Amino acid sequence: MELLTRTIEAIKPLDHEAIGRVQSRLDNLTKPPGSLGVLEDIVLALAGITGRQPSAPLRKTHILMAGDHGVAACGVSAYPPEVTPQMVLNFANGGAAINVLARHAGVELLLVDVGVASDLPDLPGLLKRKVAYGTANLAEGPALTREQATAALEVGIEVANDCVRRGAELLGTGEMGIGNTTPSTAILAALSGKPVREIVGRGTGLDDQRLELKIKAIEKGLKINRPDPEDGLDVLAKLGGLEIAGLAGLILAGAAARVPVMIDGFISAAAACIAAKLNPQCRQYMIASHLSEEPGHRVMLEMLGLRPMLTMRMRLGEGTGAVLGMTLVDAAVKILNEMATFGEAGVAESLQ
Amino acid sequence: MELLTRTIEAIKPLDHEAIGRVQSRLDNLTKPPGSLGVLEDIVLALAGITGRQPSAPLRKTHILMAGDHGVAACGVSAYPPEVTPQMVLNFANGGAAINVLARHAGVELLLVDVGVASDLPDLPGLLKRKVAYGTANLAEGPALTREQATAALEVGIEVANDCVRRGAELLGTGEMGIGNTTPSTAILAALSGKPVREIVGRGTGLDDQRLELKIKAIEKGLKINRPDPEDGLDVLAKLGGLEIAGLAGLILAGAAARVPVMIDGFISAAAACIAAKLNPQCRQYMIASHLSEEPGHRVMLEMLGLRPMLTMRMRLGEGTGAVLGMTLVDAAVKILNEMATFGEAGVAESLQ
Repeated sequence: MELLTRTIEAIKPLDHEAIGRVQSRLDNLTKPPGSLGVLEDIVLALAGITGRQPSAPLRKTHILMAGDHGVAACGVSAYPPEVTPQMVLNFANGGAAINVLARHAGVELLLVDVGVASDLPDLPGLLKRKVAYGTANLAEGPALTREQATAALEVGIEVANDCVRRGAELLGTGEMGIGNTTPSTAILAALSGKPVREIVGRGTGLDDQRLELKIKAIEKGLKINRPDPEDGLDVLAKLGGLEIAGLAGLILAGAAARVPVMIDGFISAAAACIAAKLNPQCRQYMIASHLSEEPGHRVMLEMLGLRPMLTMRMRLGEGTGAVLGMTLVDAAVKILNEMATFGEAGVAESLQ
Repeated sequence: MELLTRTIEAIKPLDHEAIGRVQSRLDNLTKPPGSLGVLEDIVLALAGITGRQPSAPLRKTHILMAGDHGVAACGVSAYPPEVTPQMVLNFANGGAAINVLARHAGVELLLVDVGVASDLPDLPGLLKRKVAYGTANLAEGPALTREQATAALEVGIEVANDCVRRGAELLGTGEMGIGNTTPSTAILAALSGKPVREIVGRGTGLDDQRLELKIKAIEKGLKINRPDPEDGLDVLAKLGGLEIAGLAGLILAGAAARVPVMIDGFISAAAACIAAKLNPQCRQYMIASHLSEEPGHRVMLEMLGLRPMLTMRMRLGEGTGAVLGMTLVDAAVKILNEMATFGEAGVAESLQ
């Protein structure tokens, strides 16, 4: 708890002087002011976060947290729970979508078992930081105790702090956990007050029958647990997942260390909403990557004040959107550093 | 005219057998079916276009066509016309945004003077294919003769054919021409029938006064020229630009050669709309990259039946969005070729 409290308190406002310096440079480059839109916003954000002009390529680390979910017993996923450890093996062997995209983007990939329901073998790139063998069923009571939720948050903080110590300049959020759009939807319902039916989605591809099971499980969970929407830790413990807690900790630690965090899709955004509830200032350290097919994702991004760069109708998770988003950050930093100024290029400025 | 006619007639339907083969492979990869959204759509499109399973990285060539516009005399741009040749020099020297992004994406950049209003020096990477020293003022009469429009279309066809002969597997569209959102808006108004005021935008950043000049010039041009919306060549000649014509030719030639073409922002989409009017089948050979800040761009993409991947609030042109989009195509092709199948990875398939 002490590490969590210390991390939450360490998050400070952006460096507006550094933003001003980078804005001046952007406005001297051979393009109409602001015409590169989000590419310009990104380098301004990086300046505010780090306090200096960024240089490319950034050292990028993507953290994929895995955990299982008691609520999977309610039939809320199109896949059986054993897929969680099977996919962790696939990640370790380099065969999953996130491996392909991380290689494409030049991103280091780190796997964290924060709550898989079975014992995993020693695997390359896997950190074994299991807090519990999956969560309890949120439809029947709290998914986690407050202590477990705190422990998982602190796993995320420690992992992030290690990455930063080793030189990471951009962190990505990703997850694996069969059933985890269910706790994410429950968290969104609790924080937003919106009806479950309005924000629920088909996750990895539910048919109508399983979708009804999912809605029922979430509604039951909200009714039984009565989470306090003003208490992020209460919402996280009662409805959350261990990987969601870990990612929330990662985000808080990134913000505290002044390292930007690329937010992936629906489950990562649920973690971001929990982090923002624990300290709203951490939102300024987040970059939104893509807009997921999961309908609640848009609602979450609006709550966070973030706008996604990519609309690819993706709904895979793992951080596949975050890693694609990282390539755009590298592009933005190169724009700042490699473009000629009006003076250097002998190009006339605006008539207006 | 013969090259144009021959190219238009050479465009054939997609190869649905190849699409089926790639769909089967996609469905065996360790992810829920369809969960990678547009990344899956892209490889299916590449299969249909080329008739085979694509392999990465694709050989990518981005073609940036430059031309000037008589309508600039009406004060429709925030920048003076001499910026067109100044920026071509900047491109040749590697200092513009498109250079930075092309390097980032591993894309060959080719510059084409199809209608700059002044003589350019010999420059590395510049093809001198000038059809005229800029267009006439569309607000006062036809911007181009039908012969000039055809000649510029054929420049685009010849450039594309050369690129394909040299091995290009993905072509990008980009442009430079002070004032060229004005002819593009005029083309959209002519083809869509929508009121100018509803689709006009601020281009590189017009103030209110210049925006009114732009609207007036377009409305006058539509009234004087009375382009036939069913005749793409008539719309192009009366309202278009030489670089817009060149890009329309490039798109048609890409489709005829079964090479996909990445469409950039507003001006490129105007060229795409002209190409689609000359042969609607060429739309299936286009990939939309980003959604520009220019309000008419969304209308054009809807007319073309395309959905953009990136929403970056960019409005620079040059093909900056197209080149970013190309990195996503490479990512998609790697997904197809590098991911493990369910069988290889020992991952359970769906319960449903």
